[in-house]
Amino acid sequence: MALARIARNGYRRTGGAMRNYALSDESSAPKCPSLFGGNITAFHKNITPCGNPSFLSSMAGMNSGSRGMRTTPQNQFAHAQRVTVESDAEDESSRYPTLEATKPGEKPRVVVLGSGWAACRFLKGLDTKVYDVVCISPRNHMVFTPLLASTCVGTLEFRSVAEPVSQIQTALAKDPNSYFFLASCTDVDTDKHEVYCETVDDDGLSKEPYRFKVSYDKLVVASGAEPLTFGIKGVKEHAFFLREVTHAQEIRKRLLLNLMLSQNPGISEEDKERLLHCVVIGGGPTGVEFSGELSDFIMRDVKQRYTHVKNYVHVTLIEANEILSSFDVGLRQYATKHLTKCGVRLVRGVVKEVHADKIVLSDGSHVPYGLLVWSTGVGPSEFVKSLKVAKSPGGRIGVDEWLRVPSVEDVFALGDCAGFLEHTGKQVLPALAQVAEREGKFLVELFNRIGKQDGGKAFSAKDIPLGDPFVYKHLGSMASVGRYKALVDLRQSKDAKGLSMAGFVSWFIWRSAYLTRVISWRNRLYVAINWATTLVFGRDNSRI
Amino acid sequence: MALARIARNGYRRTGGAMRNYALSDESSAPKCPSLFGGNITAFHKNITPCGNPSFLSSMAGMNSGSRGMRTTPQNQFAHAQRVTVESDAEDESSRYPTLEATKPGEKPRVVVLGSGWAACRFLKGLDTKVYDVVCISPRNHMVFTPLLASTCVGTLEFRSVAEPVSQIQTALAKDPNSYFFLASCTDVDTDKHEVYCETVDDDGLSKEPYRFKVSYDKLVVASGAEPLTFGIKGVKEHAFFLREVTHAQEIRKRLLLNLMLSQNPGISEEDKERLLHCVVIGGGPTGVEFSGELSDFIMRDVKQRYTHVKNYVHVTLIEANEILSSFDVGLRQYATKHLTKCGVRLVRGVVKEVHADKIVLSDGSHVPYGLLVWSTGVGPSEFVKSLKVAKSPGGRIGVDEWLRVPSVEDVFALGDCAGFLEHTGKQVLPALAQVAEREGKFLVELFNRIGKQDGGKAFSAKDIPLGDPFVYKHLGSMASVGRYKALVDLRQSKDAKGLSMAGFVSWFIWRSAYLTRVISWRNRLYVAINWATTLVFGRDNSRI
Repeated sequence: MALARIARNGYRRTGGAMRNYALSDESSAPKCPSLFGGNITAFHKNITPCGNPSFLSSMAGMNSGSRGMRTTPQNQFAHAQRVTVESDAEDESSRYPTLEATKPGEKPRVVVLGSGWAACRFLKGLDTKVYDVVCISPRNHMVFTPLLASTCVGTLEFRSVAEPVSQIQTALAKDPNSYFFLASCTDVDTDKHEVYCETVDDDGLSKEPYRFKVSYDKLVVASGAEPLTFGIKGVKEHAFFLREVTHAQEIRKRLLLNLMLSQNPGISEEDKERLLHCVVIGGGPTGVEFSGELSDFIMRDVKQRYTHVKNYVHVTLIEANEILSSFDVGLRQYATKHLTKCGVRLVRGVVKEVHADKIVLSDGSHVPYGLLVWSTGVGPSEFVKSLKVAKSPGGRIGVDEWLRVPSVEDVFALGDCAGFLEHTGKQVLPALAQVAEREGKFLVELFNRIGKQDGGKAFSAKDIPLGDPFVYKHLGSMASVGRYKALVDLRQSKDAKGLSMAGFVSWFIWRSAYLTRVISWRNRLYVAINWATTLVFGRDNSRI
Repeated sequence: MALARIARNGYRRTGGAMRNYALSDESSAPKCPSLFGGNITAFHKNITPCGNPSFLSSMAGMNSGSRGMRTTPQNQFAHAQRVTVESDAEDESSRYPTLEATKPGEKPRVVVLGSGWAACRFLKGLDTKVYDVVCISPRNHMVFTPLLASTCVGTLEFRSVAEPVSQIQTALAKDPNSYFFLASCTDVDTDKHEVYCETVDDDGLSKEPYRFKVSYDKLVVASGAEPLTFGIKGVKEHAFFLREVTHAQEIRKRLLLNLMLSQNPGISEEDKERLLHCVVIGGGPTGVEFSGELSDFIMRDVKQRYTHVKNYVHVTLIEANEILSSFDVGLRQYATKHLTKCGVRLVRGVVKEVHADKIVLSDGSHVPYGLLVWSTGVGPSEFVKSLKVAKSPGGRIGVDEWLRVPSVEDVFALGDCAGFLEHTGKQVLPALAQVAEREGKFLVELFNRIGKQDGGKAFSAKDIPLGDPFVYKHLGSMASVGRYKALVDLRQSKDAKGLSMAGFVSWFIWRSAYLTRVISWRNRLYVAINWATTLVFGRDNSRI
């Protein structure tokens, strides 16, 4: 496809050509490079004053060998619809409706892909006096992921953990040149400074699918990751993930459905056992918290409200290694003991295949199930895989210490979709909300700083010092394990010393900490009320 | 199908044969008949003491001409699976899993079809020391319908208007012989005292669809009605109804989707106008309240949060006659003026056809739309149509003044699915929550009374006086029209005199009245909090 070719060419050209120069110079300016791709910046800083963007662009064009049309960067994508690109004259994408590039005098436009922790922390802090902002995401809200597991059984309501993006950054709704687009980004043309989008649900529109493009001055890729299935057959078809509110809704519906179906006359003992067997694959915090919530639900609500089948409900947590492997060994033992006491069966095993009604483990044993939740971590999304940029170990978008994608200009990546490039000497950070949020905070401060120094426009921040690079300091981990118990591990790393505790006090800390972290006052109120009503009235079990 | 034949034969036999006797005797005992079909009761009361159920059954069998097997009523359906019915030996239904008939010494079983106002009011009041109860409904919750329109735009949350049936009648969850079955009733065999069911969503079960049958001592049919479409082409495919929580969820999702899609680059003015044109068909209370809520949403939330498209959003209410025709003429004029002031276009018209993107009116004009809500009243459901019992004018299940289905034994019908038979001389009551609830209350008091006199079992209440017949007294109507205004009409009928008022005070009465009527304390709390947070923070617009 023409589009992919453009992107690929762009990457090869910029990234490839620059690396030669950069290599020899890498150590000379690592602390305070410009916004322009890390390596090429080093080159520019030392070789030329380079205040002239047209020089840059023609230089970038030098290595392309395939593009005749070159204008100054500010204009090269200004009227993309009318541009005729040599050998791509028939390019379908050139006919897409476009949010055109900003003109001189207009505020620079930051395009943010995604609406997760990283994107929303970035959006929240962005100085909209300096920037216009466009957020593109297939969902119009942020999910407060640490509390998502609680919504599956009704401890919390779905809306209490969802925060509309336009409430996090009101400019998206109010500013004349800022927008939220409900769409998926399908491709990025880093050369033209454009992103290509497709509306998610275009039910109401005549053309299907509806495609458009958006020009950017700066691009922030925070599009997140996808659940890992390790290519295991049947997972995508039969298992539920637990990453979005819709996933939690589906899990809740299925759980309630199975509880009701299993009461029907004539259901065999075997079918009851199967229908009411909830299997969780993956012993990370999500899997453990969900198992804990399930056991809470069973011990309180199912016992009271589904007396006919209460003895058939079981939870099994299957993990290939150890549960909560990132936690202190004492906490892990506590969790294991506590979960077992709450009726969660912990099984060590590796899933080989998933069928509609049973899992086959690698040792050949069969595990019949009625509900299967898959939570074995995340990996790069198809979109990230398709991007023609250098990748970090693990296949994420490679970034330098300032979260720039060094091979291209004005592109930044953060959150679960990004990882440090190998040459930075830094490890890829874990896919945690905490990491994403800290990166968002770092990047938006950087953006606001350079924006005030007129570095917001495309290609315009080369000489602006970026300040200190991003350093991640782990604040600790928490996980609830059900029945008013949680783990709190405040060690900075797996091998460091530090406070770690488990039990009721930890649970109280866990709840208090998350309550203060919930994005808006509205949702903070609702989370508190949900918790209170669950305590008083039990969990809601209307299947809506 | 064998099953339908059984039901049909049963009806013809019982109803047909009895009418001859009853006609001559109708006036002699109209005030205090027994539970047995109204007409035949009169006959029995005067001709024979008739305490012997086996006499009854053999008498009922007299006219059937097609059934050889006859046992006492108590046993005739006790082991339906094992019964071999002449010429129906291959009858598929005989192999269905069964909740078998109650045995002597066990509590009688009331089977309730439905979970709406009538069913839930009945369930709530049932004396579960006397009866076991089985509720069969395709949804496991009751919907507080008067507030449903408010959930479509986020004034209220969905769960605030949904009440789990098992919370309304806790015996369903707790008593060993009471059940809630998530299923649709497909047929009733009044002869065998059995209902035939099919699970609604049998995703988790191996057999599809999963069918079973339930024996009853008494059957309460409160399965509600279906939206009327008058056979207009395209309504079912393209319009949203507003009867269930899922409908409200779909409407909310579509509304938010259209608001977002219309902001995409390149959307033509025409498409924007269309996408953001909300059309409501039907000017009854639901249609008017929904229009009012929409205009509220537009005037406050859309103006603030969708500034790019706020001027394109419009609401049109199309009604063939007059809006709120059951209200006082002064109130109607007030509503018309108020809605018009709030930007709702009132159009008099008749819909001829509905297409995916436009409505064709009978005058030939085309109305493009992005959201279409259809609210033109209700009519008999397919299930009610399929029942072989006498119908009231309008096709509802015909009942007498004690809500009995007179042609068959131990069957009662109430709510939107039932209507007085012509010979009662009473008018069919309107399909209102108020009517259904009052009927539920009446019937459950009747049930509790006869239950305590050992009249709960099948065929056992013939000699028990039923007390006064059901008399409906209209308490008045209310409807909100948006922007803190409502109508309150306390006249008992359309032509009676009485208090009628409109405005802010009425709105306050409207809210207070409904708040006190919300079923549970939990939901009362949530409705109040939803209203408060909507006032303070605006409506939630996360599309989940």
